[in-house]
Amino acid sequence: MLNRKLRMGMIGGGKDAFIGAIHRFAANMDGLIELCCGALSINPEIAADSGKMLFLPEDRTYTNYEDMIKKESALPEDKRIDFVTIVTPNFAHFAPAMMALEHGFNVVIEKPITFTLDEAKQLQQKVNETGLTLCLTHTYSGYPMVKQARQMVKEGAIGKVRKIWVEYPQGWLSKLSEREGNAQAAWRTDPKKSGKSGCMGDIGTHAAHLAKYITGLNLTHICADLNILVEGRHLDDDGNVLLKYDNGAAGCLMASQVAAGEENALKIRIYGEKGGLEWAQQEPNTLLVKWLDQPTQIFRAGGGYSYLSPFATKNCRTPGGHPEGYLEAFGNIYHNFAQTLSAKLSNSEPTEEMLDFPRVEDGIFGMAFIDKVVESSKSDVKWTKFEI
Amino acid sequence: MLNRKLRMGMIGGGKDAFIGAIHRFAANMDGLIELCCGALSINPEIAADSGKMLFLPEDRTYTNYEDMIKKESALPEDKRIDFVTIVTPNFAHFAPAMMALEHGFNVVIEKPITFTLDEAKQLQQKVNETGLTLCLTHTYSGYPMVKQARQMVKEGAIGKVRKIWVEYPQGWLSKLSEREGNAQAAWRTDPKKSGKSGCMGDIGTHAAHLAKYITGLNLTHICADLNILVEGRHLDDDGNVLLKYDNGAAGCLMASQVAAGEENALKIRIYGEKGGLEWAQQEPNTLLVKWLDQPTQIFRAGGGYSYLSPFATKNCRTPGGHPEGYLEAFGNIYHNFAQTLSAKLSNSEPTEEMLDFPRVEDGIFGMAFIDKVVESSKSDVKWTKFEI
Amino acid sequence: MLNRKLRMGMIGGGKDAFIGAIHRFAANMDGLIELCCGALSINPEIAADSGKMLFLPEDRTYTNYEDMIKKESALPEDKRIDFVTIVTPNFAHFAPAMMALEHGFNVVIEKPITFTLDEAKQLQQKVNETGLTLCLTHTYSGYPMVKQARQMVKEGAIGKVRKIWVEYPQGWLSKLSEREGNAQAAWRTDPKKSGKSGCMGDIGTHAAHLAKYITGLNLTHICADLNILVEGRHLDDDGNVLLKYDNGAAGCLMASQVAAGEENALKIRIYGEKGGLEWAQQEPNTLLVKWLDQPTQIFRAGGGYSYLSPFATKNCRTPGGHPEGYLEAFGNIYHNFAQTLSAKLSNSEPTEEMLDFPRVEDGIFGMAFIDKVVESSKSDVKWTKFEI
Amino acid sequence: MLNRKLRMGMIGGGKDAFIGAIHRFAANMDGLIELCCGALSINPEIAADSGKMLFLPEDRTYTNYEDMIKKESALPEDKRIDFVTIVTPNFAHFAPAMMALEHGFNVVIEKPITFTLDEAKQLQQKVNETGLTLCLTHTYSGYPMVKQARQMVKEGAIGKVRKIWVEYPQGWLSKLSEREGNAQAAWRTDPKKSGKSGCMGDIGTHAAHLAKYITGLNLTHICADLNILVEGRHLDDDGNVLLKYDNGAAGCLMASQVAAGEENALKIRIYGEKGGLEWAQQEPNTLLVKWLDQPTQIFRAGGGYSYLSPFATKNCRTPGGHPEGYLEAFGNIYHNFAQTLSAKLSNSEPTEEMLDFPRVEDGIFGMAFIDKVVESSKSDVKWTKFEI
Repeated sequence: MLNRKLRMGMIGGGKDAFIGAIHRFAANMDGLIELCCGALSINPEIAADSGKMLFLPEDRTYTNYEDMIKKESALPEDKRIDFVTIVTPNFAHFAPAMMALEHGFNVVIEKPITFTLDEAKQLQQKVNETGLTLCLTHTYSGYPMVKQARQMVKEGAIGKVRKIWVEYPQGWLSKLSEREGNAQAAWRTDPKKSGKSGCMGDIGTHAAHLAKYITGLNLTHICADLNILVEGRHLDDDGNVLLKYDNGAAGCLMASQVAAGEENALKIRIYGEKGGLEWAQQEPNTLLVKWLDQPTQIFRAGGGYSYLSPFATKNCRTPGGHPEGYLEAFGNIYHNFAQTLSAKLSNSEPTEEMLDFPRVEDGIFGMAFIDKVVESSKSDVKWTKFEI
Repeated sequence: MLNRKLRMGMIGGGKDAFIGAIHRFAANMDGLIELCCGALSINPEIAADSGKMLFLPEDRTYTNYEDMIKKESALPEDKRIDFVTIVTPNFAHFAPAMMALEHGFNVVIEKPITFTLDEAKQLQQKVNETGLTLCLTHTYSGYPMVKQARQMVKEGAIGKVRKIWVEYPQGWLSKLSEREGNAQAAWRTDPKKSGKSGCMGDIGTHAAHLAKYITGLNLTHICADLNILVEGRHLDDDGNVLLKYDNGAAGCLMASQVAAGEENALKIRIYGEKGGLEWAQQEPNTLLVKWLDQPTQIFRAGGGYSYLSPFATKNCRTPGGHPEGYLEAFGNIYHNFAQTLSAKLSNSEPTEEMLDFPRVEDGIFGMAFIDKVVESSKSDVKWTKFEI
Repeated sequence: MLNRKLRMGMIGGGKDAFIGAIHRFAANMDGLIELCCGALSINPEIAADSGKMLFLPEDRTYTNYEDMIKKESALPEDKRIDFVTIVTPNFAHFAPAMMALEHGFNVVIEKPITFTLDEAKQLQQKVNETGLTLCLTHTYSGYPMVKQARQMVKEGAIGKVRKIWVEYPQGWLSKLSEREGNAQAAWRTDPKKSGKSGCMGDIGTHAAHLAKYITGLNLTHICADLNILVEGRHLDDDGNVLLKYDNGAAGCLMASQVAAGEENALKIRIYGEKGGLEWAQQEPNTLLVKWLDQPTQIFRAGGGYSYLSPFATKNCRTPGGHPEGYLEAFGNIYHNFAQTLSAKLSNSEPTEEMLDFPRVEDGIFGMAFIDKVVESSKSDVKWTKFEI
Repeated sequence: MLNRKLRMGMIGGGKDAFIGAIHRFAANMDGLIELCCGALSINPEIAADSGKMLFLPEDRTYTNYEDMIKKESALPEDKRIDFVTIVTPNFAHFAPAMMALEHGFNVVIEKPITFTLDEAKQLQQKVNETGLTLCLTHTYSGYPMVKQARQMVKEGAIGKVRKIWVEYPQGWLSKLSEREGNAQAAWRTDPKKSGKSGCMGDIGTHAAHLAKYITGLNLTHICADLNILVEGRHLDDDGNVLLKYDNGAAGCLMASQVAAGEENALKIRIYGEKGGLEWAQQEPNTLLVKWLDQPTQIFRAGGGYSYLSPFATKNCRTPGGHPEGYLEAFGNIYHNFAQTLSAKLSNSEPTEEMLDFPRVEDGIFGMAFIDKVVESSKSDVKWTKFEI
C-alpha cells in the first residue's frame, strides 16, 4: 500500500453547497486523503473564499475545472493530485469527468453519473481504456448493515428472494420551493440541469441501486407511474414503479419528494422463502432479520459482533452502541476507493473488500433506470422491458 | 335506547374457528349483546360441543343456519334474536345473509361480504327494501386513531391529499401450508371457497377499505400486479396496485401473504399539502402526525386527550397509556352497530357516531375492488378504470 | 367445569368511576361471567342510573354493600352470585371484602388490597379459614409477555438474575389536580382515603409486584427516597427505591406521577448472567430478549408461536400481529380466576395455569412494601430490612 | 481566525487502542486539525507501526511522551504542535497533561481527567496560571440534541426541573473478561490503572456529566449503592445512585456494565413542571419533547429546522434524516475546541458557542463524583453531602 495520503482535487462544492461539504467530511474522516486543490465555484469570489475556508493554497484555488485539470496534470508527480471529486449539478458531471480521465486522474463523482445514458457509456469506455478508477457515490450502499444484508442474501440465509419493497419518501419539495429562492430545489427541478426526471433521478436511482446492491437481482420489466403532484413543477416529484426481476421476484419501488413531513426515509424490505430483511436509513445501525418460525432478530452494526459478516464489520469504525451514520457510510465509499487506489498505485491487486464501492457500471444502471421509468410512465402498455 | 341487551345468533364460528371467537370477544366486551343461539358448525358434534362451551341452551344449538333462522323467527319477540353474525368462509356468506334479512333479522357479516359482486348487490337491494341493518366487519376502521386520521383529513388538517401508501404484509402463507393440513390456509387459497382472489380478497380489501375510510377519496383507475409467489398455489398470494384517485392523488397498495416473518403489519401513510399521517396496526394507539415546518407529533389514543377528536375519543375505553388493541377495534364495530340497532329498535334515529361502522356499501366496494384488481392484473393495458 | 357462567356482584364502580368499567370489560370479554347485581354507588341516584345502564334488574341494584351481601346470600343457590368485585377507593376495601368472605362469597379486589397491612393479614386468615378464593387485580401480571418473561427466568434462560430495573412514570399528577376538581386525583392524594403512601401505594406496588412475579426473588433490604414534588400535596407523588434481593441481585424501582408527559409507562428490565429481558407496558405484545453474544430477539405475543411458553400462549386470544392490550391482560386475571372458581365449584382441582392470578399473599406483599418504603424514606439509615 | 489547520500530537492511541482511533476520526472530520506527531505506544515496535499507519514522519514518531513534549517544544513555531491529545489509561493522564501545560501546549484529555481529585485540582491550577486550554472529551455532551435539551431547559420550556433519571447500561463486562485476555476489560477493572471505581468511573461519570450539562443543576446529596455483580472482579461493575439537587429536584443515576445484551444505552429523562425531555444515545438524532396537554413532539437533529436552537444547529453537519452519530458528537467537541484555540491563537475572544466543550471544571466534577459515590456506597448513613 501507498505510504502517504492520497491527494484530492474538488470540482464544485463551494461554501454554500450541500454535497461538497459532505464529500469533504467523508474524505477527511479516515486520514487517508488530503484535499489539495479545488475548482470550487465558477464565481471567483466564492471560489476564493471557499479555498481560504479550506486552507487551500491560493495557487491551487482554481475558478474552473479546465484550469485545474490542466495545471494539476503539469505538477510534479509527488505534488499532483491523484483524483478529482466532482460535485457539480448533474448536467455538469460529464465534461469534467471525461477531461479528468483523459488527463490520467481517477474520478469520484456524485450520482446520477451523467446527464444522459450515452454520456455514461462514454465514461465507461474511457474508464476501460485508461484503467483508471471511477467511484460513484451511491452513499447508501456504504452502510455496514446494508453490506450485512447483501452478504446474507448472497449466502442464502433468507432463501430465494421473492419480494422487494423499497421506498424513499422525502418531504422537502412539498411546496414549490424552486420559485421561493431554494437553490437546491431550483436546479433539481429544472430539466436542463437535472435531466429528464426529478424525483426518480434524484432519489429513485438510490432506491433502485440499493435493491440491486443487496439482492444482486436484475430487473426484467418495470411499470412506472411518475407524477407531478405540486402544481407548476416541471419534473416528476413522485413516483411508484412495479418491478419484475430475473429470478421471478416481484417488487415495488416508491419514491416521493412531496411526502410532507418526511426527512430522508429510504427503507428496504426483502422477503425470501425462509425469512426477511428490513433496513431503514434513518436508523442505519439496525438490520431486522425476520424468520418464519423464530423471533425476529435485531442485528446491530459495530465492531466485535461475531454474528456479523466480516464484510460488514470492516466497514464499522466503532463498537456496537456507538452509532455511526450517513457521513461514515459516505466515508466507507471513500475509504474503499482510497484503499483501491492505494493498492493500484503501489502495483498491488485491490481485494474484493477494497473494490466494494459503486463504479461506472452502477452509473450506467442508474441512467438506464431513469430512461426506462420515464419511458414506461409515458406508455399505455403495462410492462416496459428493462434493458441497458 | 333499548332497556336490554341485544340478542345475537351466530352462524359458523365453531370451537376451532379463528374469526368466530374474535366476534364473540368483540360482542361480549361492552355488555350490550348476549349470544343466545348458534349454528356453529355443520358437523353436529362440533356444533354441540361448541354450544356447550358457550353455555348455549341445547334447544338453541342448531346444526344448520336454515333451521336456526326458521326456529328463531318463530320464537316470541322477547326471546327471539335481534341479529345474526355470519362467520363462515366467503362462499357461504350470501345465502344465510339473504335468508336472515328475509326473515327480518339484522346481519353482521365477515368480509368480503359475498363471493361475487352480484351477490353483494342483491344484499344491498334487500337491505334497502327491508330497512334492516347490515354491518360488515372491516375491523381496522374500528381503531380510534384511524378515526382520528379520518377526522383530520376531513377537517383539512393536512390539506389536499396528494399521496397514499397503504401496505399489508403478512408472512403466514410463505410455505404451501394449504397442503400441510392448515385449515385456514386451505380454504383461503381455494378459489371455490375464497373467490377469485386470495391475498387481495383476504387482506387487500382491508387495505383498500382503510384508505377509503380515512381519505374519503374515490378510485378512478388502478394498475394491478397480482402474483403467485409460492409454487403450486392456486390464488394470488401477493400483489401491488398503483392507484389514481378522483382528486388527482396517486397511491400504491401493497399486500402480501408471503412476506416471511411479518405478522399482520397493515400500515397506511397519507400525505397532503401541509402534512402527513402515519398509522400502523401493530402499534395502533399511536398516530404520527407530520408537518412541513414543525416537529412530528405523536397523537395517542385514550380518553381525556383534549387534542383528539370526540369522534375518536368515543371509541376509546381506557385513558392514554392503557393500550387497547384488535379486539377493542372489533368491539367498536359491534358497539356502534349495537347502538344503531338499539336506537332503531326503540324508534329513535341513530346518530352519526352510532352509524360509524362499515355497511353494505363498503361490501360492494370491496367486491368491486377484487373484480377490478383481477381484471387489471390480467390486462396488458396499464390503467383499468375503476367503477362499481 | 361448571356448565354455566359465573355470577358477579359489583361493589363500587358507578357510572363515573374509572376502574369499575375496566373490571366489567375484563369480566365480560370471555363470556364466562355475568354481572348480576351491584352496589355501584352510595349515591342512590347514581346507583339507580348505573344499574339501568348495565341492564341490572331493579331489585338487584343496591345502594350499599351490606344490603347486597345480605340479600344476595339469601337468594336460592342457582340465582345467588358467586363472587363480589370490590372497586371502591382503598379505604373502603376491607369491610366489604371481609363481609363477603363471611357470607361465603369469593372476592375480586382492586389493589392495594386494604388500607393497612394488618387488615390484609386479617383477610388472609379469613381466606384460609373459609377456603374461598380472593383475587387481587395486579393487572400487569396478566400480560402474556410478562408470563413469558417469568417462565424464561424460571427455566434459567438468562441465568442467575443480577440486576432489576423497574420503572413506572406517569405524568397525570404534575399539577395540583386534587384542588382542581379531579375526583381521581382527590382521593388518591388524600391520606384518609388512599393510605400512608400516594405514588408508591398506587403504582409503586404494581412495579414491585411485577418484579416479584417475573423473578420470584425476595427483597431483603430497601432504601427509599419518597418525594412530594408538587407543592401543597399531602402524599408522595414520586420516589426511587434501591433494592437488594435474597440471591444477591441489586435493583432499582422508580415511580413517579409527576413525570410530565408520560402516560402509564411501566417498564421492567432484568439482567442475568447470560442475557436480559425487557418489557414495556405500552408496547405489551413485545418482549425483548437480549443475549451476550447473539442478536437481541423480539419475542411476540400471539397464539401459534412455537417459541413461546404454553404458559404465555394460553393467555393470548389472537394470533401474532393482532395486538391485545390492557383490557385483555385484565381479562386474563378474570379468566384464570373464573376457571379456578369453576373448577372448585365443580369439585375439581384447579390447575397451576388456572391459579395464575394474584392472590391474598400478593396483597400482603404490597401492603408490606408500602409500609417499608414509607419507613425507609423517613429513616437516616441507608438500608431498611424488608420483612413481612 | 487562524489561517491554517491546528497541529496535534497524540499520546497513547497506538494501533490496537480503541479510543485513540476515535479521537483521530473526530479530529480529522472537519479538516481543521492535522495529526503531526505521536507517542502512540511505549512499545517501540507498536509506536513505529502506528506512526507508519498514520503517515507520520519517522522523526516525529516518539516512544514516550517526555521526548515528544521536549522535542516538539524545541521546534520552530510554524512547525511545532498546538496541542496534545492524551488517550492513555486513567492512571497515565496526569503526568503528560501537566508536562504539556508546563511546556505551553494546550491539552485534549480523555475522561476521567486524572486518577485522583487532587491531581485534577493541580491541573486546574496550572490551566489557570498558563491561560492554556484543556478540553475533556465527555463525548455525549457533543450531540446536537443534547445541546437542544440544554437550551430548552435553560429557556424554561419545561418549567422548573423536578426529576432526573439518567441511566447507562452496558453489558460488555457480564463475564470476567479481564481474565480472558480482553485488554480493555483488564485495565478498566484494575484499581491501579482505572482508579477507585470501575463502572462509576468509566460510565457513571458520563451520566452525571450529561445530567449536569443539560440541567445546569448542582448536586447537594447522594446515596450510592455500588455493586460487584461478577464474582472475582476488583471494582464495581454496577451501581445506582439517588440524587438530590440544589433546586429541590430528585434524581436517580443508574449505571451498569453487566446489563447483559446492552450496548451503550445511555439515556436521560428530565421532567419539569410543564413537560419532559427524553434523549437516548443510541438514537441520538431524536429528542422527545413531552407536554402535559399536547402530543409528544419528535425533535430531530439536522440543519434547516427552524424549531431548533441555533446552539444545536451549529453542531449539525447534515440536513435532517441524514443521521449523524457518535463520531460527529466527538467531532463537535474537537470542532469547538479547535475554534476556541484558533480564536485565541489569533488573539480574538472565543464566542460562547466556541467554548461549548467540557473543560477542566468538568473534570473536577467527575473526580469528585467518583470520590463521593465510593464514599457513600461504603457508608451506612443514607445521604452523603456532595461537595467538591
